[in-house]
Amino acid sequence: MRIAELSRRSEVPVPTIKYYLRTGLLPAGDRTGPNQADYGPAHLRRLRLIRAFLEVGKLSISAIGELLAVIDEHRDDVHEAIGTALAATHTDTANVEADSPHRRAAREHADALLAERGWTEYCQPAEYDALVNTLAAYYRLGATDLLDGLGRYADAASAMADVEVAAVLARTDVDSVVEGALVGTILGESALATLRRIAHVEASARRKDTARARVRQTRPS
Amino acid sequence: MRIAELSRRSEVPVPTIKYYLRTGLLPAGDRTGPNQADYGPAHLRRLRLIRAFLEVGKLSISAIGELLAVIDEHRDDVHEAIGTALAATHTDTANVEADSPHRRAAREHADALLAERGWTEYCQPAEYDALVNTLAAYYRLGATDLLDGLGRYADAASAMADVEVAAVLARTDVDSVVEGALVGTILGESALATLRRIAHVEASARRKDTARARVRQTRPS
Repeated sequence: MRIAELSRRSEVPVPTIKYYLRTGLLPAGDRTGPNQADYGPAHLRRLRLIRAFLEVGKLSISAIGELLAVIDEHRDDVHEAIGTALAATHTDTANVEADSPHRRAAREHADALLAERGWTEYCQPAEYDALVNTLAAYYRLGATDLLDGLGRYADAASAMADVEVAAVLARTDVDSVVEGALVGTILGESALATLRRIAHVEASARRKDTARARVRQTRPS
Repeated sequence: MRIAELSRRSEVPVPTIKYYLRTGLLPAGDRTGPNQADYGPAHLRRLRLIRAFLEVGKLSISAIGELLAVIDEHRDDVHEAIGTALAATHTDTANVEADSPHRRAAREHADALLAERGWTEYCQPAEYDALVNTLAAYYRLGATDLLDGLGRYADAASAMADVEVAAVLARTDVDSVVEGALVGTILGESALATLRRIAHVEASARRKDTARARVRQTRPS
């Protein structure tokens, strides 16, 4: 197909497609004339992947480039491919605080949580840093009362990961397994965060309604 | 305290503090001289909040400004305050595709999921759009095999929201409830996403080990 049709079907504007071609995010089409090229289904799929990572995953163009490179490498060690790809999506900047009491508390908390679940050996450096950074923010804000649910989060994450990993591994070719794992991780994070927000609104509204009903019941009639 | 001590205790560099002061993200200190001001614990706490939203939540300065404004309004309708604040953190750009088959499928999927749980009335427009955008990306990529776990996500989100909302509402003053709800939402999303990634690595490593053990067992000795 021509670039105009590729744009229509992917819903990505032509200038954006040209930018992805220039930066190598999208491979060149087959040249059919001095100013014309032909694009196939692989180009369409690639544009849809870029959109998903960009619009839903809010990833940077350079992180997306690294994810796509891992998919293109056709590695047969899916487990390793995913690890490499996900490390690319961490945007944590170097930490200014080498060692503070909050950070030490966060590290102890993270270590205990991981050890309890036998996760220590599976926790990659990028995820460990992200976990410690997040916990350190709770400690700095004195918001450790909100950390009581963390074990539940870990349990829920574990139960869901089992189902998701099984779904991805049920795919038949390696490329599609690696792509599925990345799509599942990035889009799943967004889906889960959104559902959690809706559940929060529902839970706080329900508590408000219950409190109101209680007031009505105890009011003298 | 002087700005130098504020910087040391918050681990935020002095030029960054000055930038926050200029943009109004941080209220001015008490003037003690032509070029000097005094800062208190509220300034330190505010800097810690900004850091958490910026470094862990990866929010924009303008979104952080809106969250802080909601905390400063001291509203006593916590439920409403949270809704206003969270809408500010959505960065979804206007959608180019008014109506595509993928988008229609995503909308039907979202509607069914929300209706099943009685969540329809609690789902705010910003969350609804985010959910539909995420689901549309799955449909566009033909990755609906990865959506089987979505109901589980919703159930887990619901169970966890109950605990979290109870923890936040157990706080005694309104400001702290609103702040806690925002901190819990933003930092909790990061904590959950990280734990989910670790759980994924663990689940895929475990399956790899099981597959290896099976190969060893069936190998003739």
